[in-house]
Amino acid sequence: MQENKPLILVTNDDGVSSKGIRSLVEVASRFGEVVVVAPDSPQSGMGHAITIHDPIRLHTSDIFDPIQAYATSGTPVDCVKLAVYEILHRKPDLLLSGINHGSNAATNVLYSGTMSAAVEGAMEGIPSIGFSLESFDQDADFETSKKVVSDVIQLVLENGLSKNTCLNVNIPYVSEADFKGIKVCRAAHAFWEDRFESRKDQFGRPYFWLTGDFVDQEKSEDTDLYWLERGFASIVPTQFDMTDYKALETLKNWM
Amino acid sequence: MQENKPLILVTNDDGVSSKGIRSLVEVASRFGEVVVVAPDSPQSGMGHAITIHDPIRLHTSDIFDPIQAYATSGTPVDCVKLAVYEILHRKPDLLLSGINHGSNAATNVLYSGTMSAAVEGAMEGIPSIGFSLESFDQDADFETSKKVVSDVIQLVLENGLSKNTCLNVNIPYVSEADFKGIKVCRAAHAFWEDRFESRKDQFGRPYFWLTGDFVDQEKSEDTDLYWLERGFASIVPTQFDMTDYKALETLKNWM
Repeated sequence: MQENKPLILVTNDDGVSSKGIRSLVEVASRFGEVVVVAPDSPQSGMGHAITIHDPIRLHTSDIFDPIQAYATSGTPVDCVKLAVYEILHRKPDLLLSGINHGSNAATNVLYSGTMSAAVEGAMEGIPSIGFSLESFDQDADFETSKKVVSDVIQLVLENGLSKNTCLNVNIPYVSEADFKGIKVCRAAHAFWEDRFESRKDQFGRPYFWLTGDFVDQEKSEDTDLYWLERGFASIVPTQFDMTDYKALETLKNWM
Repeated sequence: MQENKPLILVTNDDGVSSKGIRSLVEVASRFGEVVVVAPDSPQSGMGHAITIHDPIRLHTSDIFDPIQAYATSGTPVDCVKLAVYEILHRKPDLLLSGINHGSNAATNVLYSGTMSAAVEGAMEGIPSIGFSLESFDQDADFETSKKVVSDVIQLVLENGLSKNTCLNVNIPYVSEADFKGIKVCRAAHAFWEDRFESRKDQFGRPYFWLTGDFVDQEKSEDTDLYWLERGFASIVPTQFDMTDYKALETLKNWM
């Protein structure tokens, strides 16, 4: 534990005015000095995108007054870069992303702006945690989530995180009474079976909406999806080296 | 090797009219039946973003006539989903992404739309390869690249790829005479030291451009950056399970 109050950067992908980030700021401010840098509009599904073809806008926001806050046109990953290099001019002691409206369990970590911000934090060497609630409801109840967030922040401040690792924390949408506890586990190999809804605009030209079903292909124990279904919050330690080390030797034999 | 000509999906992130994708289509068409589904405008740095807040437009394009081609407003990952679920209505036998104008070695794989399309292909169970050339020049010379692309496609058609693995192939910007060969290796742990260029618009309001330097922090042998510097193309087997298995046991002891 640090002697001084830790500096905590809070971001998300649902935008600076979402209920999820308000719940996260509320809990985070019990642990340290909070600075918020978040997108000015929803950026779900932005993955690890960065803004390189357009200029980025950055404005102060009084939405969390007296907590210092900024809203930006950038992506969640841009928020982390802006915070470290343009606003704080130092690395925060902790980065918290979320609370996301909707699960980021399993392979959703790749599509998630919320989790990509946490991964970017890990790349910057900042202890980073992404939080997601299994409900897309914009007015969802975050009471159980706030308890989980508090417990996980406490654990990370006490134990630290190993270099290159952030946490992907997903929280089931259950009441405090039905909440079973927290499990550390791996990410399930589950995938989207996509569909496109085809419609016509006012000029008769087609356009598509991406939709689909999320299918858990392995149904194994000790995955995030397994525990979430049973009323537990899941913590998946998450890293950013995408090298497939198992395949490395096989491929070397090709040459 | 298949008896019939393989169905090859080609995509990228620089857009359907870039020189890189034209070079890739030229080589791919020697190996099978090619269908192109690519963004209608540059989408570099889009990472694993998907379009969920906006409708997606999709148009046929005669740019590769007589090869079937589509241009879309979607991201590179959207291109893969559109191709499989809306255009081909089946999984192609091979997915090729690129040739990217600019390196996607090391941790750039996370920011890269080109590589995210290949990763999405792996998630769909499609043998997938992303190709990138170490030059941002829009009129770069792709002659060495075309040779590498041909060799790697041949290797993958002969050997197959293990499930959940795609290839991140980066090619040095050297002449065929200076090209040293192909190395299978892991991704370097190199990171961007970001900066933001601050400017004022015509109304005096500030905006930022993201820029920075890419720094190889480890300087180890047998990484993609190591071999690229020495005139070799690098192949990094790349997977999508971001679970940090090394950290898993440590974290379980927290509970």
